[in-house]
Amino acid sequence: MNLKNFFSNIPDKLSDEIIETVFKSDSIRIERIISQGQSSPENFWYNQPENEWVIVLEGKAMIRFEDKSIVTLHKGDYLFIPAFTKHRVEWTDPNQLTIWLAIFFK
Amino acid sequence: MNLKNFFSNIPDKLSDEIIETVFKSDSIRIERIISQGQSSPENFWYNQPENEWVIVLEGKAMIRFEDKSIVTLHKGDYLFIPAFTKHRVEWTDPNQLTIWLAIFFK
Repeated sequence: MNLKNFFSNIPDKLSDEIIETVFKSDSIRIERIISQGQSSPENFWYNQPENEWVIVLEGKAMIRFEDKSIVTLHKGDYLFIPAFTKHRVEWTDPNQLTIWLAIFFK
Repeated sequence: MNLKNFFSNIPDKLSDEIIETVFKSDSIRIERIISQGQSSPENFWYNQPENEWVIVLEGKAMIRFEDKSIVTLHKGDYLFIPAFTKHRVEWTDPNQLTIWLAIFFK
């Protein structure tokens, strides 16, 4: 069995967000996303055709939804975002890495 | 959006393993499993019809496969276990909680 570690190969500092697919099958895709201070571009909204279940494993982030509600995610907080639910990353902590585990599925 | 925390409501000590479904849809099921010293019953093998992607978020555990190979999982280690791959939990650390995030899918 092929064992990998979710917290390995993480840079100390990063200028751009890192998005990596750690697993992919016909039905699901699992991503590791590492942020530090990045947010979605102004007026950009994610509006993806897949459902998403996302958990923050390290760090702190804020997600804004189209209805203007904002959720702040701390370590361990998780959220289900149904397909075609417009959302954007409003803020990620500039002072530490934020590590997300995101699962996309139909 | 309904925000929950994966690391909340965790007992300090537990006599039995705790298995909770934290998310479920037609296509996937996400479980939180908390172990402390438990292992699969003797001669018991998981042999499930779903694929499983599992990560250890806290603690330490060992999984044995039918071919007798054993993998030791530390914090952050993750593994894909295809459907109908016989496996068993050989050991979990008795001295700390092991917190697993397991995703089951077709």
